[in-house]
Amino acid sequence: MKAQRVEMFVCPSASPSDTSGLQQLADGGKIKPDTLVALVGKTEGTGAHDDWGRVWADVALREWTSKFLGIAVADVAQRVIFVLSGGCPGVITPHIAAVLTDARDVHLVMVKVPGLTNASIKDAESRRKTVVSHDLTFGPEGAGAYANDAAALGVAMALGEVPESSLSDEVVRRNWDLYSSVAMTSSGGEKRHGEVVVFGNSSTSHSPMRIGHAVTRDFIDAEGVRNALRSAGLRFSDGLPDESDLPRLVHVFAKSVIPGSDQVRGQRITLLDDADAYQIGKALGGMLIASVTGRTTNYVSGGERNSHQGPPGGNIVAAVVRTEG
Amino acid sequence: MKAQRVEMFVCPSASPSDTSGLQQLADGGKIKPDTLVALVGKTEGTGAHDDWGRVWADVALREWTSKFLGIAVADVAQRVIFVLSGGCPGVITPHIAAVLTDARDVHLVMVKVPGLTNASIKDAESRRKTVVSHDLTFGPEGAGAYANDAAALGVAMALGEVPESSLSDEVVRRNWDLYSSVAMTSSGGEKRHGEVVVFGNSSTSHSPMRIGHAVTRDFIDAEGVRNALRSAGLRFSDGLPDESDLPRLVHVFAKSVIPGSDQVRGQRITLLDDADAYQIGKALGGMLIASVTGRTTNYVSGGERNSHQGPPGGNIVAAVVRTEG
Amino acid sequence: MKAQRVEMFVCPSASPSDTSGLQQLADGGKIKPDTLVALVGKTEGTGAHDDWGRVWADVALREWTSKFLGIAVADVAQRVIFVLSGGCPGVITPHIAAVLTDARDVHLVMVKVPGLTNASIKDAESRRKTVVSHDLTFGPEGAGAYANDAAALGVAMALGEVPESSLSDEVVRRNWDLYSSVAMTSSGGEKRHGEVVVFGNSSTSHSPMRIGHAVTRDFIDAEGVRNALRSAGLRFSDGLPDESDLPRLVHVFAKSVIPGSDQVRGQRITLLDDADAYQIGKALGGMLIASVTGRTTNYVSGGERNSHQGPPGGNIVAAVVRTEG
Amino acid sequence: MKAQRVEMFVCPSASPSDTSGLQQLADGGKIKPDTLVALVGKTEGTGAHDDWGRVWADVALREWTSKFLGIAVADVAQRVIFVLSGGCPGVITPHIAAVLTDARDVHLVMVKVPGLTNASIKDAESRRKTVVSHDLTFGPEGAGAYANDAAALGVAMALGEVPESSLSDEVVRRNWDLYSSVAMTSSGGEKRHGEVVVFGNSSTSHSPMRIGHAVTRDFIDAEGVRNALRSAGLRFSDGLPDESDLPRLVHVFAKSVIPGSDQVRGQRITLLDDADAYQIGKALGGMLIASVTGRTTNYVSGGERNSHQGPPGGNIVAAVVRTEG
Repeated sequence: MKAQRVEMFVCPSASPSDTSGLQQLADGGKIKPDTLVALVGKTEGTGAHDDWGRVWADVALREWTSKFLGIAVADVAQRVIFVLSGGCPGVITPHIAAVLTDARDVHLVMVKVPGLTNASIKDAESRRKTVVSHDLTFGPEGAGAYANDAAALGVAMALGEVPESSLSDEVVRRNWDLYSSVAMTSSGGEKRHGEVVVFGNSSTSHSPMRIGHAVTRDFIDAEGVRNALRSAGLRFSDGLPDESDLPRLVHVFAKSVIPGSDQVRGQRITLLDDADAYQIGKALGGMLIASVTGRTTNYVSGGERNSHQGPPGGNIVAAVVRTEG
Repeated sequence: MKAQRVEMFVCPSASPSDTSGLQQLADGGKIKPDTLVALVGKTEGTGAHDDWGRVWADVALREWTSKFLGIAVADVAQRVIFVLSGGCPGVITPHIAAVLTDARDVHLVMVKVPGLTNASIKDAESRRKTVVSHDLTFGPEGAGAYANDAAALGVAMALGEVPESSLSDEVVRRNWDLYSSVAMTSSGGEKRHGEVVVFGNSSTSHSPMRIGHAVTRDFIDAEGVRNALRSAGLRFSDGLPDESDLPRLVHVFAKSVIPGSDQVRGQRITLLDDADAYQIGKALGGMLIASVTGRTTNYVSGGERNSHQGPPGGNIVAAVVRTEG
Repeated sequence: MKAQRVEMFVCPSASPSDTSGLQQLADGGKIKPDTLVALVGKTEGTGAHDDWGRVWADVALREWTSKFLGIAVADVAQRVIFVLSGGCPGVITPHIAAVLTDARDVHLVMVKVPGLTNASIKDAESRRKTVVSHDLTFGPEGAGAYANDAAALGVAMALGEVPESSLSDEVVRRNWDLYSSVAMTSSGGEKRHGEVVVFGNSSTSHSPMRIGHAVTRDFIDAEGVRNALRSAGLRFSDGLPDESDLPRLVHVFAKSVIPGSDQVRGQRITLLDDADAYQIGKALGGMLIASVTGRTTNYVSGGERNSHQGPPGGNIVAAVVRTEG
Repeated sequence: MKAQRVEMFVCPSASPSDTSGLQQLADGGKIKPDTLVALVGKTEGTGAHDDWGRVWADVALREWTSKFLGIAVADVAQRVIFVLSGGCPGVITPHIAAVLTDARDVHLVMVKVPGLTNASIKDAESRRKTVVSHDLTFGPEGAGAYANDAAALGVAMALGEVPESSLSDEVVRRNWDLYSSVAMTSSGGEKRHGEVVVFGNSSTSHSPMRIGHAVTRDFIDAEGVRNALRSAGLRFSDGLPDESDLPRLVHVFAKSVIPGSDQVRGQRITLLDDADAYQIGKALGGMLIASVTGRTTNYVSGGERNSHQGPPGGNIVAAVVRTEG
């Protein structure tokens, strides 16, 4: 697991394969081959396991990075971590954030792990192995949800949020008392190994950035989002960030996991019944963040039903704020 | 057009045909046959033109009202106006609001008009009439969107918001400078005539209720929602309604029309491309309201692309607040 | 389990609550209160667990039947079995088949069993019970699929198709070598107990009907459909039923279960990846039957991924043919 | 418009960017740079205007072709025509057909034309131009449907199927008596100009291939499909191609346009109401072809509601059959 001092630049993408924003950063000397450690972004497309927008973005970004670093495409994964989250329903702007390089005081751990595909299931079963699920979606019994949640519990264990002795196959997606407050995890069939980016602050750092985070108490908790922004050093007045303060906000990372209950603050909702709950759940997180920050270039992933990422019903929100003019 | 002094009770529904909340109001003497003027609600289901949840709710509520008023089912429409909006994606709780009886100072006009169906198109064409669209959805060229928007321009003309001389078939869904700031309109194939409910305040009223409204400036404008609530008399501190004030909030009515542009505050979004933009657009409005009020029993309709209901990009929000203990 | 001599009438439905076809049969003396044993049909709507079209049809048909039989609505379930299958995507005409009254030589067993809902899961978990799945869909790990398949294995055991000793919780949706060739099962949250209709032929019967069935060898096997029709006594020439023979075809019942493999006859298909595989899978079965029979009033349910209803990859097709002029 | 003697090879694709099948053909000397005239295929993905699977395939195939021909990527369009149709719902195998080189007796004209996008609409309106529709889908008033149908009428005029005097903007998607029996057209936002491939037979040709076509009489007409195959020289017995004849079938091209009526052979269907009619309509065409040919590697595009491609209610089917052992 790498630990890094963060510099970060956010580039909107005009299409999944758009690398022009990164090229501008490179041309301007803002990013350098020896300090680029991660590309984290949201790509447009269905967000499903077979989201060709995300897969195409991965291929195009990997080619660009290979040229930028002067190494073979196959070696890019050794140097730069890719965390691409597919699907920008609603008010989430497709974008790529370039992350540069020592963190303590962890506020956010992003993980991308391999996901099952029809091909990998067929391969496993041909070797007489069983798989946790044949459902390739991020639904309540979906292989994507199990992959994400196993990774979240791994982070929780590594950070001491849950004791190793409490973990077993049986608790994954069953015991919701076990969770991480800083892990955002996703999965994709195109990954062959897990990749981890750790964000935090260091008292010895000279970084002009500060990261903070908070956890929302439920699915409609805008105050939780404001708390995350305050944790990173942003000021608020009357529900909105101070106009003069907003330019200091570099980026927001948020999960939008659907609650496991059909009630929010005592009233029934039908989200658990929605055929397109995955898309709607993700989109709602995008609105919750955008309605507080007033901008749409936020990293919001989600749509799973329940998760070990954050407490039951709540979601993790992390914000990066520039500390100097 | 009827004008009314408003009393209003909001009953969550356990299913589309659930009339138990209304029956409790009747049993408790809260609503009376001679003062019940409208039932306005959100019903669970697809929200599409063939949403059987909405149609079933209409049949069940009409039967209940016929018994409550002691009249034939066919005569209910002469006495009580039904405005049922189908689809509760995301954080919108299915519910029925019973409205009782003199308004001036109009803050909200709700209209339900007939919509096209495959059967009515076939009938029209057999009589050598053309129809505006063969698309039965609420998409950008959908018959449902044309029906809603023609009704909104009708309200705008009646209230003097737009001059009659500016109206013609050609401006509907083409000239977005023409709009009403108080009309919320919807349509359904089950309607044979238009129905209108007008909400306003009167200086001579003894009503314990006050209605206010505002228009959001864009799709993520939480401050616009707070302005609507303030207009009705609610106080805010630090982005949230005062805890002590919140019980006075009776109900919120809001549209959630998708902007016609693919940009929000200068950044691209892909909502116009989303295959399920209708559901997501409606759901996002639900989140915007719920994240401000902290409750999910809000009347939020929408999902259309652009509309004469409200200014380009913005949406109408109206709130009813109890003025006394 | 009741066993019956079958008379059957098929009534197209103009809407989910349309009982006019049944009323015409009653008025014409074709169906009688003491011989009506089952109503089996396809209803329009989403086909999902919260398909309000199906639920509304159930309520409306139950009310009609209560009046026809002169008994309380609550007692209808003791006398008449309802098997309503929601969702008519593609070329499946919504319809109700009225079934009248002794069968041996079983060709088809239709079963409707209770399904999980958010409410029943919450209830179970409050009593410290676990449920097989929190996914309410008919997806590969969906509660609906588990309910249907447990019922199918129950039929297979009852008919001696699989030995009781081979059955356990572990084999449901895992061991596909265990299956029934005559069970068509479905489930719905509105059911509180299972209901079974058995169709067969009897050598001592004076019925003018004959039922036959066959199993398709894979998902595109039109010849398997023709075999089912031949089994019931229909003749074919050059791929189509003889024109003179077609009027004798009373009804076709078919499952359209999606294969568990991503290959059909050696070529890859992406149906397992389709976000709307449930609807498409059901619709494809409708086309397979309609393209052979030349009519769309067929009972086709399905969309599940793999099933114990029929052999791996294949589906059950049953046909009822009139044996006399 | 180019006219060609056809040689054709069909390569299944393992992913949208898979060019390994083409490379094998090149390595084996089956296709040559100077005779490759078109790549025609089906790509997996949503099939919608923003189908990133199709766009990625276009990019990847264009890169491969540029290397194969030893020319710049930008020059590929001058030499090789690309007709990629997105979306393989149901039983349609993703594949690419390589077409080599004089045709008379036209049986099939494939056209790919530019489609509207949010960006091109914004551009047009900034230049004070109007667009036919703001709906980017292939729905009844969708820009994609208008683009496809205008192209079909262009082919119909060129081939003398309709007189030029009968054509005007007003007849497009309004006068269904005007149609081509051989035009299959599609559109995509990535195209900047139209591309046309003409397939036919020539008495002076030494080609080992023969193409034939027919038009189905309605949406469930399997006999129409058999007629197309017979037209190309295939023999049938009892509804299926002769086993010994099937290997001679090289490829099938078919449209699957949804009928404009809600009735098939006198019975109501709800396909016009289906929220996912586009996907289901396309998938049903795939089943109709696959159930006759017994194979899934067929080019089937469609899902539009009504079209000038084929007569009202019917669809075009073309087949290529090898004439020698």
